[in-house]
Amino acid sequence: MARWADTMSINPCDIIRKKRFGGELNEQEIRAFVNGVVDGSFADYQASALLMAICINGMTDRETLALTLAMEKSGDTLDLSDIPGVKADKHSTGGVGDTTSLILVPLVAACGVKMAKMSGRGLGFTGGTLDKLESIAGLSISKDIDGFKRQVRDVGCAIIGQTAELAPADKVLYALRDVTATVDCLPLVVSSILSKKLAAGCDVVVLDVKSGSGAIMDTPEKSRQLAETMVRIGNMSGKRFSALITDMDQPLGNYIGNALEVEEAIDVLAGRTKGELKDVALTLGAHILRNAGAAATVEAGIKMLEEKIESGEGLRKLGDMIEAQGGDRRVVEDTSLLPKAPKQIELRADRAGYITRMVTSDIGNAAKLLGAGRERKTDELDLSVGIVMHKRLGEAVKRDEPLATLHVGEKSDRVGAYNLLKKSIVIGDEKPEVKPLIQAVIE
Amino acid sequence: MARWADTMSINPCDIIRKKRFGGELNEQEIRAFVNGVVDGSFADYQASALLMAICINGMTDRETLALTLAMEKSGDTLDLSDIPGVKADKHSTGGVGDTTSLILVPLVAACGVKMAKMSGRGLGFTGGTLDKLESIAGLSISKDIDGFKRQVRDVGCAIIGQTAELAPADKVLYALRDVTATVDCLPLVVSSILSKKLAAGCDVVVLDVKSGSGAIMDTPEKSRQLAETMVRIGNMSGKRFSALITDMDQPLGNYIGNALEVEEAIDVLAGRTKGELKDVALTLGAHILRNAGAAATVEAGIKMLEEKIESGEGLRKLGDMIEAQGGDRRVVEDTSLLPKAPKQIELRADRAGYITRMVTSDIGNAAKLLGAGRERKTDELDLSVGIVMHKRLGEAVKRDEPLATLHVGEKSDRVGAYNLLKKSIVIGDEKPEVKPLIQAVIE
Repeated sequence: MARWADTMSINPCDIIRKKRFGGELNEQEIRAFVNGVVDGSFADYQASALLMAICINGMTDRETLALTLAMEKSGDTLDLSDIPGVKADKHSTGGVGDTTSLILVPLVAACGVKMAKMSGRGLGFTGGTLDKLESIAGLSISKDIDGFKRQVRDVGCAIIGQTAELAPADKVLYALRDVTATVDCLPLVVSSILSKKLAAGCDVVVLDVKSGSGAIMDTPEKSRQLAETMVRIGNMSGKRFSALITDMDQPLGNYIGNALEVEEAIDVLAGRTKGELKDVALTLGAHILRNAGAAATVEAGIKMLEEKIESGEGLRKLGDMIEAQGGDRRVVEDTSLLPKAPKQIELRADRAGYITRMVTSDIGNAAKLLGAGRERKTDELDLSVGIVMHKRLGEAVKRDEPLATLHVGEKSDRVGAYNLLKKSIVIGDEKPEVKPLIQAVIE
Repeated sequence: MARWADTMSINPCDIIRKKRFGGELNEQEIRAFVNGVVDGSFADYQASALLMAICINGMTDRETLALTLAMEKSGDTLDLSDIPGVKADKHSTGGVGDTTSLILVPLVAACGVKMAKMSGRGLGFTGGTLDKLESIAGLSISKDIDGFKRQVRDVGCAIIGQTAELAPADKVLYALRDVTATVDCLPLVVSSILSKKLAAGCDVVVLDVKSGSGAIMDTPEKSRQLAETMVRIGNMSGKRFSALITDMDQPLGNYIGNALEVEEAIDVLAGRTKGELKDVALTLGAHILRNAGAAATVEAGIKMLEEKIESGEGLRKLGDMIEAQGGDRRVVEDTSLLPKAPKQIELRADRAGYITRMVTSDIGNAAKLLGAGRERKTDELDLSVGIVMHKRLGEAVKRDEPLATLHVGEKSDRVGAYNLLKKSIVIGDEKPEVKPLIQAVIE
């Protein structure tokens, strides 16, 4: 590791002490930390002390950028420059019923901007995009880097699992943060997300930062700060970043699960389903088109994407991508080919009124109890199970009207899920004010 | 460990998170931390994250007391209640040429207050009290608890190495603090010192907190805060604590080393040597006598101790203690029985003027280079080597007059020590103002 030679002589304690007393770490010190975490010269108990000092005393933009770049360079970095045109990527901080990637990736590709998405699996209320894709028969999310690049070049889009070792420092640091109460810290969240995005090699990145119940940042102010910092630091790195802050006070789409979310994405691409999921997917996609120079404005971008829905080109592009990854492309015309849960249970309103509140995180947890999400990395998912919501915030309901349908599998905790879901949908007398879906655009 | 059952259900992350955001930890949380550190349920990377949060966000007195008591109870605690009378202990935060214990322990015992001192070895510029005592032929610092208590009862004083496992949590935490830049943190220093003193079971404790170059706290304000907090927390525990803040802008005594410091202590007890070392030793001893109820005032205590020097009872008591621990008691009458370094080197003034400044820590480091102190726990000491200073701050010197004598052994780095010592004694034109030796008394 000759490139790190300049950081060898820095003592971990000196770096920790500087941050303990509120000093600004320089690039060399930050590289010594990140490198040390990977090669073991910075012990985990030293790293966690420094992480805590960063949580409490913060980091300047200069430090956050240096941390991001050091983490980016801690492993492999993808070079996509031999693929012609602008390459784009999208990242979401994670929501419930949030399957915008499956919608915007083929639509944006249909407009001529290449979407090269390498995803991790992660933990969450439901599976990640990779899990959702695997509910399509035959589809593989494994490809080597050459195959990945070839698909992006030829088809225009690809979504695969990480093959290259991107930002290994992030893995080590995240594992430590998870057990030392240092997850929700702005510069650490920013550098964790951005380092992987930068290592993945795209020119344009659009971020979807969730706000509200079940979001990574627990207040609107913090969500906004996160979005602003990611865009600022991302742009300092020389790439083009934008971010939307979107509401999570209810699930984004109505379908929550893995196969269920694929079905809803296909419904949107086929023009059958409108609503918030489509609106967010198209707005994110339009920012990519605008930032890539393919559309003059976001409004023009949305119009282009709408046309790709109407013409059927978006749905066809999803079919092309599925086929290129070995999957059964007929699913885009016939969603009954997706796995179906053996049993459906209706949750009905026990009173009339308005939907005044949804506890989004607990709706996600109910889906997890059914088997749609992982608690531990090794947990196996049931791709068929999940929840279909029938009401949105602010809608009127009659007594006994269906609020949601639980799609239940053999191993589902159906009682636990039902009770949790019931508690998560609050019916009151007054029609509530509903927040705008897209709360802010940061660019 | 049934007594900890109430702390089993607390998640380390919840405790860390509370302190990260500036909350006050309750007793149960603090016990869960201390207990977890000893039994491993609190991982070292979690402990270091919490230590850093404590360093930055501080602790209230209630938290510091709870931490002290939990650490005290993390191992064995000594019960001295079957020894009649008041039992007293003394602690110094560590200085250069600071051998007050060897003077005040026998003097106070000669006044009828029992001194029961169990010392650790520690690292420092020179050896600790235990190392100094071992320069007396035959003397052993090992005794079991019964033997220790018998000696305290019969002789009136004992200084031995820790046999009981006092405050094992402190060992683990100190090792972590040492490598995570979290040593110099008030509540951590206080709980570390007090937990061991409380576990050692004495009723009265007098603390000597050093201020100035080479002290544990680097500003007078911090030294004062340390002394005040220790006395406050110590008294909250139900024992009687006092503290002196004493100046370390120059070595306390003129003899720096192990056998050399024993020699100076004997010289003080024999009435041959006066000066700052004697003044501090007698003031500390007088506070013990006053707090133990053996003297009405500190002034009366000092007078009692002076009488024990004049009558020779103090020196005889030291002889009794040496004899009780298997050592050659003739040394109190004949210091030539102590080990002597084979070679002496004079450091002479290269100009005339006044001693305007001493870098006490570097004078200590020069003694360490000669072999008087340890860098690592496993380092072997040369008990005969060290430095004898001939001038004090503010004294006039002539060119070529001896400033100090280096007592050099076979393995001494004599050139390094000479050069460092030379740089540490600054001669200028103006007679400087010298700070009072005892800067404050906290009770």
